[in-house]
Amino acid sequence: MLENKLIDFYELTMAYSDFKNNKHEQIVYFDAYFRKNIDNSGYSLFGGLDEIIDYLNNVRFEKSDIDYLRSLNTFDEDFLEYLSNFKFTGDVYSMLDGDVVFPNETCIRVRAPLIEAEIIETDLLNRFNHASLISTKASRIVHCANGKGVMEFGARRAQGNSAAIIGAKYACIAGCIGTSCYEAGKRYGVSILGTMAHSQIMKYDSEYEAFLAYAKAFPNNSTFLIDTIDTINSGLVNAIRVHKEYLVPNGYRLKGIRLDSGDLAYLSKECRRILDENDMQDCKICVSNSLDEYLIKDLYEQGAKIDSFGVGENLITSKSTPVFGGVYKLVAVEENGEVDPRIKISDNEIKITNPGVKEVYRFYDKETGYALGDVLALSDEVIDENEYTLFDEKSPWKRKTITNYTVRKMLHPIFKDGKLVYTKPSVNESKEYCKKELETIYEETKRLSNPNKYYVDLSQKLYDLKYGLIKEKRGF
Amino acid sequence: MLENKLIDFYELTMAYSDFKNNKHEQIVYFDAYFRKNIDNSGYSLFGGLDEIIDYLNNVRFEKSDIDYLRSLNTFDEDFLEYLSNFKFTGDVYSMLDGDVVFPNETCIRVRAPLIEAEIIETDLLNRFNHASLISTKASRIVHCANGKGVMEFGARRAQGNSAAIIGAKYACIAGCIGTSCYEAGKRYGVSILGTMAHSQIMKYDSEYEAFLAYAKAFPNNSTFLIDTIDTINSGLVNAIRVHKEYLVPNGYRLKGIRLDSGDLAYLSKECRRILDENDMQDCKICVSNSLDEYLIKDLYEQGAKIDSFGVGENLITSKSTPVFGGVYKLVAVEENGEVDPRIKISDNEIKITNPGVKEVYRFYDKETGYALGDVLALSDEVIDENEYTLFDEKSPWKRKTITNYTVRKMLHPIFKDGKLVYTKPSVNESKEYCKKELETIYEETKRLSNPNKYYVDLSQKLYDLKYGLIKEKRGF
Repeated sequence: MLENKLIDFYELTMAYSDFKNNKHEQIVYFDAYFRKNIDNSGYSLFGGLDEIIDYLNNVRFEKSDIDYLRSLNTFDEDFLEYLSNFKFTGDVYSMLDGDVVFPNETCIRVRAPLIEAEIIETDLLNRFNHASLISTKASRIVHCANGKGVMEFGARRAQGNSAAIIGAKYACIAGCIGTSCYEAGKRYGVSILGTMAHSQIMKYDSEYEAFLAYAKAFPNNSTFLIDTIDTINSGLVNAIRVHKEYLVPNGYRLKGIRLDSGDLAYLSKECRRILDENDMQDCKICVSNSLDEYLIKDLYEQGAKIDSFGVGENLITSKSTPVFGGVYKLVAVEENGEVDPRIKISDNEIKITNPGVKEVYRFYDKETGYALGDVLALSDEVIDENEYTLFDEKSPWKRKTITNYTVRKMLHPIFKDGKLVYTKPSVNESKEYCKKELETIYEETKRLSNPNKYYVDLSQKLYDLKYGLIKEKRGF
Repeated sequence: MLENKLIDFYELTMAYSDFKNNKHEQIVYFDAYFRKNIDNSGYSLFGGLDEIIDYLNNVRFEKSDIDYLRSLNTFDEDFLEYLSNFKFTGDVYSMLDGDVVFPNETCIRVRAPLIEAEIIETDLLNRFNHASLISTKASRIVHCANGKGVMEFGARRAQGNSAAIIGAKYACIAGCIGTSCYEAGKRYGVSILGTMAHSQIMKYDSEYEAFLAYAKAFPNNSTFLIDTIDTINSGLVNAIRVHKEYLVPNGYRLKGIRLDSGDLAYLSKECRRILDENDMQDCKICVSNSLDEYLIKDLYEQGAKIDSFGVGENLITSKSTPVFGGVYKLVAVEENGEVDPRIKISDNEIKITNPGVKEVYRFYDKETGYALGDVLALSDEVIDENEYTLFDEKSPWKRKTITNYTVRKMLHPIFKDGKLVYTKPSVNESKEYCKKELETIYEETKRLSNPNKYYVDLSQKLYDLKYGLIKEKRGF
């Protein structure tokens, strides 16, 4: 049973209209995709499949739902009876958690009776949007940390508890070494990490006593937060004192210090120098406080001496762009067994859809393994394995013929007739998968600012279909 | 049982340190507050109490928690045994859902044994932060809508499912007339609303057929989405045709149209003109598409003809500032029955805390009922009911003596010795409460840009305590 299913009310009114017009079991196709990378990134990470599987396996209308719907005096009993037997019976093809994806590519393709395809819209989009948002943001931050560990520390600033827990999960898939979020550790087996709060110091009569008490509990794993009173003149002094007076005499060493305010470039260098002078080269410096990919990059450029980064609100809310923008659009209907492609035109050009039942193909350089570009094609097309001509949808005269490539389909079968046909990987397996996928993307595309645009093209056949339909609808 | 409790791992390591140092049952006081209004707003709305009550009533460590914690090889069995009996036994004073609040005021005050006060930190903050964020953002949007209805439509873009459901709840408390989120309607009794998706049109062979089918299902409650093909030349034409050819002959009228793309100022005026020419003055115009408080204000200024606003991602993620920034800080400990105030100093001045056990008092003009200012005072102070001198903490020579006021305490008893002593209002009652509270705030403070700063002052006694402690710690 799903406790928290998300349905927008219009899905139910449309479903009722379908039901009353006897249209509800018509087979339709919907695509989930997004239109724009967040933060002007050159790429995004797909996320949410693991969550969507749980949802589609469990979506039902319980008695409490039927009672509530009846109380609205909007629907008739036939419809409520129908809903009480509702389950998902369709087919789903999807990208995988950790896949690198680009705007306008089909990320999830649903084929189902109309009423099912409509009712799942909001929950599917919510899971896709949230997981992809956090995966993408975390990936950018991890990329800038340049091999040093990034820890997800944002639960208290997350937008609700599922934002914290599911966010921590996708941050780890995208490359974070762990999270402070206990529940994510318990559920998904990811590493949970933490140091101490300022209250650890404030509850004692002195900073020295506070550090000493903690060191007694965790002699081989203490990282002291040193900025509660004065970072250099108090915190660092007391940390070194506990190291020398308690830890070393007992056969232990201080594992780390954490900086959470002040100028992190200056303070990390000063702390590193003083720690090294005290023969504490192995004492790690962890920093936090409003970190994001840009600040991390700047800290490196200023020679900061940092061993790991704790990133809070800027990651867990994707603060600079907190919306992924994924949409779910009808692309075809079946009539008498024939697939009839559909298009949505809009005065906002970015809102025009790609019609038809589609596959996404990714081409790789056979020598280097780098991804060369993606092509959306109709599902009945055969892709030549030896030579393919890419062209730009907006400037169709820009053409490039490639050879010596390998090509693979990016959409995988997940549900067939409502039955799960995909074996879910663990979170740590998805993390490994994501790492390998990112290695196939050129550094130029992963650059923080003004990245190189990755090719996402239409096949000639899809291009002809799309612009033929636009001409038909708008008459030019 | 709480399925999703949020704990940051450091809370457990600190709790373990307390336990091993036999300090875990010391009575301590924590304050939850925030430092800055989002979006340079002049005020914020407090939210999260209803959620925090559920949390504190139910927080436990289940067998699955203990098993997981044991698997970490970090804690001893005595501690795990202790946690297995964990529950909240402390006192909580809090502002109420829908209260108008300002930076640096104590919003929630917790008095509890150290281990409890520490372990509840993250979940309490998460609920306070998320609910206050969405309440505040929704309030600003509703204020700009100037009496026209604002509908919360953001579930698909929310950061996870609790963000959607709890977000919808607090958007309604802050003044939204309803939400698209089915689950929020079911749980909280708020109005659920919606129109139709573009797929409603695309799944039919023509826009006219799509509108007609929907009108047959909902003859007395149809709002058509008219921008799927061409707003003025197709959508509006077909809407008027269904009105005239089907609805009117059957004794009904078209309730509304919705615009979701294009220029909403121009299109709403043009649609209004054409609807009126067709004797459809009662047909409402609803708009959506990237609305926020600023765009709504601009649309009014350009004479847009709009009856209601559907607001999605900009509200449900508080896109322009997606983090509320609430913190939870130790303010005092009890030693031998005496309260000992604590302070956190920081090189970042905004991070210095207000020490001691405090009350928040709000002063009102006895004639007009408007709020004049708030004062943080120590809990053992008595506030003179006839004359009070306010002064600015940063410029203590700026003094103002007020008379002819009423004053009230803003913190209410919620838990006493772990028992709930507060009767939770319904969401609709909180909404009414919020509306009344907002009426006591000067319009100048509610202005969107550069609002007048509301006074939040310290009592002389609290001021002396705070600066005395800073002097003691930093020696000047």
